Amino acid sequence: MSTQVQALYDFTGEPGTTEMSITSGEILTLINTDIGEGWWEGRNSRGETGLFPAAYVRKVTPDESAPTKMAPPAPRYDQAADDWGDHQYSAGDNNYQRAASHDEGWDDDWEDDTYSEIGPGPQQSKQAVNQPLTPLPGMPISDLNHQIDDNSSTFGSSVGTVRKNKFAPSSKVSGESYLLGTLNVEVPDSDKIYIEQEGDAYIWSPIPQPYNVTVASPKKESKFKGIKSFIAYQLTPSFNNIQVSRRYKHFDWLHERLQEKFTLIPIPPLPDKQISGRYDEQLIERRRVQLQEFVDWMCKHPVLSRSEVWQHFLTCTDEKRWKAGKRQAERDNLLGLNYCISLVVPEKALLQSQVDHITEQCHIFMNSMDSSVKSLTNMCIAQTKRFQGPYKSDCQKVGEAFYNLGNALSLDEGTIVSTSKLTSAIKMAGGAYIEIGRMYEEQPKYDFEPLGDKFHLYKGIVGSFPDVLANHKAAVQKKKECERLRAENKMEREQLNEVFRRNNVISYALLAEINHFKSERTVDLNATMQKFLKQQITFYKKVVEKLEVTLQHFEQ
Amino acid sequence: MSTQVQALYDFTGEPGTTEMSITSGEILTLINTDIGEGWWEGRNSRGETGLFPAAYVRKVTPDESAPTKMAPPAPRYDQAADDWGDHQYSAGDNNYQRAASHDEGWDDDWEDDTYSEIGPGPQQSKQAVNQPLTPLPGMPISDLNHQIDDNSSTFGSSVGTVRKNKFAPSSKVSGESYLLGTLNVEVPDSDKIYIEQEGDAYIWSPIPQPYNVTVASPKKESKFKGIKSFIAYQLTPSFNNIQVSRRYKHFDWLHERLQEKFTLIPIPPLPDKQISGRYDEQLIERRRVQLQEFVDWMCKHPVLSRSEVWQHFLTCTDEKRWKAGKRQAERDNLLGLNYCISLVVPEKALLQSQVDHITEQCHIFMNSMDSSVKSLTNMCIAQTKRFQGPYKSDCQKVGEAFYNLGNALSLDEGTIVSTSKLTSAIKMAGGAYIEIGRMYEEQPKYDFEPLGDKFHLYKGIVGSFPDVLANHKAAVQKKKECERLRAENKMEREQLNEVFRRNNVISYALLAEINHFKSERTVDLNATMQKFLKQQITFYKKVVEKLEVTLQHFEQ
Repeated sequence: MSTQVQALYDFTGEPGTTEMSITSGEILTLINTDIGEGWWEGRNSRGETGLFPAAYVRKVTPDESAPTKMAPPAPRYDQAADDWGDHQYSAGDNNYQRAASHDEGWDDDWEDDTYSEIGPGPQQSKQAVNQPLTPLPGMPISDLNHQIDDNSSTFGSSVGTVRKNKFAPSSKVSGESYLLGTLNVEVPDSDKIYIEQEGDAYIWSPIPQPYNVTVASPKKESKFKGIKSFIAYQLTPSFNNIQVSRRYKHFDWLHERLQEKFTLIPIPPLPDKQISGRYDEQLIERRRVQLQEFVDWMCKHPVLSRSEVWQHFLTCTDEKRWKAGKRQAERDNLLGLNYCISLVVPEKALLQSQVDHITEQCHIFMNSMDSSVKSLTNMCIAQTKRFQGPYKSDCQKVGEAFYNLGNALSLDEGTIVSTSKLTSAIKMAGGAYIEIGRMYEEQPKYDFEPLGDKFHLYKGIVGSFPDVLANHKAAVQKKKECERLRAENKMEREQLNEVFRRNNVISYALLAEINHFKSERTVDLNATMQKFLKQQITFYKKVVEKLEVTLQHFEQ
Repeated sequence: MSTQVQALYDFTGEPGTTEMSITSGEILTLINTDIGEGWWEGRNSRGETGLFPAAYVRKVTPDESAPTKMAPPAPRYDQAADDWGDHQYSAGDNNYQRAASHDEGWDDDWEDDTYSEIGPGPQQSKQAVNQPLTPLPGMPISDLNHQIDDNSSTFGSSVGTVRKNKFAPSSKVSGESYLLGTLNVEVPDSDKIYIEQEGDAYIWSPIPQPYNVTVASPKKESKFKGIKSFIAYQLTPSFNNIQVSRRYKHFDWLHERLQEKFTLIPIPPLPDKQISGRYDEQLIERRRVQLQEFVDWMCKHPVLSRSEVWQHFLTCTDEKRWKAGKRQAERDNLLGLNYCISLVVPEKALLQSQVDHITEQCHIFMNSMDSSVKSLTNMCIAQTKRFQGPYKSDCQKVGEAFYNLGNALSLDEGTIVSTSKLTSAIKMAGGAYIEIGRMYEEQPKYDFEPLGDKFHLYKGIVGSFPDVLANHKAAVQKKKECERLRAENKMEREQLNEVFRRNNVISYALLAEINHFKSERTVDLNATMQKFLKQQITFYKKVVEKLEVTLQHFEQ
């Protein structure tokens, strides 16, 4: 029997190509899934054949009921499709007017309103994926959801969250069908993530093929004949050396996907919104550095570095493939706890008391870290301002005072030869301090700004931990609720065992993540502090050097 | 014929000693002038003999008219005599009550009201010395005075004066009898001051026996059983190694005498009145340093270093002698231009055009120097505050941020051994920055404060130059007036020649002083700048060292 798929969204094929237009809800017969780059070939009810994005359809299982019930309301894809800013390559002169007005405000990549572009789409598609999962007989899902919401709001909301997605309630249990044992998906071996024991600790299995990605100097690109311009960052992964160009909104979209999918893993933050002033070169460079921090953390993370959406983000160079991958990521049904279906953990069941102890300790630690990294980022911002403002101008005042003395003395030159040497030495001293002032102005970009960028990263990660802990705690609460249901004979022993088993997996994931953060920061902070101190030493050595040269100009 | 003297002031001899009371106006016959320490022996009209202070009398010349006309109104010496604060040594327990009330407010040495203690006395005595000098036939002295006042007020008052003596009009020609040729005093060879030619320049003949004087750590002394306390500085001249104790008001008295006497020589300034807070140790030390600057400048000056009042100030250890020397200084009749009678200058007459050029250049130079040294002293004060305030607290904020990070990390210690080393290194980094903050607080006393003290000295000297130039210019104007008188046949050719000759001496004195300032500052500023730069280098090297030690605590 031939496989049938149902179109999830409308797709308009390019006329005069092998592409075929499909309409949301339409049933198609699959002909070939071996086209590559995210394309499938199929035949519609009218007998026409052609290519369409694989991500735009879902396979229809034989036992499935009428497909119309599951189809999500069509997201505003006409609009969303435009958010891949490269479409000016195909936009002719005659239609830039439409596109330009349509694009209004889109280039304010760093403004909050960017979020509304993509927001509602994935949110709806996520519900669409989760909803049709059949509840277990006699299980009051809505009741459970209510409980979880209560718990999470008291547990997780005390610490300020850095989550930016205003549509996603930060600590709602996402993907609870996994926990309840109703999600059963075959995960290919290649997608499985292992958690291993290392000494007393549990760790994510290390990345088999470590790689890194450089975020290169941003380019100011423009479209619509220069009417619109935007900043694109050039990313080059070490595994293929193929550069891709990404705008902030692409990072932002990626970030939303990651936060949605990995509710037990803190997602590193994107550049600080406080860094304002779009085309100021220094600020663009700061964002690059903070994006590099984001990318570095992603690359070093055993789970995140291998995620499909990240790989898509890193490698896709083609607009159509990008759209297809985008749709696919947005209809990912392994979100939240559901993601844990991909995990393979040690046989041994964790002791709840041990888990409780670790999470409690983590909670206390993260609270303390949170205020510490916040004060560090503030300190770095303040010191940067001090160096560039008063420190610089103080030095220059010292320099000007000496320089003016030299000028005054030169009014009385000519009769005593030695005065001339003194006068010029005093002027040089003035010049040296003015120069040191400039050094102060330049210096933060070598020490306090990178330090601040690093602690911006930590602020984001540390600030996400309360949500992670809340998500885990909500799962534990749900497990307890299931125990109650079992005690009331409302749940089968076998199903409760499955809940226990899966809860155990969730706890392993949390412990592995806590440990990952610990080992990462140990290496990272050590390097960070050394780099900072070395830069400070270099700076003060340069000051000493400058003063020593100045001193030599005076008659000994 | 025995020499007769006339008492200028009342003096009450100590009963039961060899001292004899004398009354202002009384004629005495000199018996012995070889008593020493400022005492003479004489006989009064009643045949009584005894000692009295030589400074209290003046020799009566045979051709002198009735002495009563010359006697100055008796200054309030009862009060003034008390300003030598050591009289508690003789004051018994039974009379400290009187002395204490009498002394009310006198220990506010650093306040302005101290000046009123000695003020009126010398001013009146100066007039007394000048007035009886007979005007030349047909010479309208009052007319000349009027002219000089006019000139000096337009020439000399434009630049802010640092003269503190509110009784002395700053640019009135003091001692004009010298210029007009009416002052004829035999100056002993030992008191003569020579001006020599050195290349193109004229210089004060170098000090034959250079010496220095150390101003030692001030002591807080008290009198009247601790009811009154004051700060006394210990001065030790290198030529006798005998320490004398001087309070601020003694310095202040000395300063007034010097300003009165040397109107062609800028007198170095006393400590800044802005340094307030009497018994704060740091401030007392600051005053000591500024007094040392004053003393150093005095010692290095070929004229000032040899002046009688200065020598008296440096060497007198006895209360009676102090008083006698004090009176003598206060009735010194070689004040202002009259002082020039002691000068011996090269034969060659100076060209007025040359002198005009030099004084004009000096005027421009001093104007520029004045604003330069003022901005330097302000800069030093500002930098001192910055180091002790924001620089210190900024460093400590950096330190605290690191320290708190270390504290936060230590909450999560125990499972990974290496964390512990990192945590302690981060805490150490915190400690290092807090320590560097303390170094910033300490630092100004090694660099910006001494630099400020040095420029306080220059501010005073440079600020006095406009008066010096005005005094010289007034003399030149007077010379021109004499030329007019001669043209109108109101002055003899011979007398005009004497005016020319003496004006030439005055110009030599100015040139010598301009040159002295130039050569002194050349050496001095060179040393000052080097000392400052070396201290700055030392400081930043210490910062580097501290950071390098800190860096070593991190795992390499």
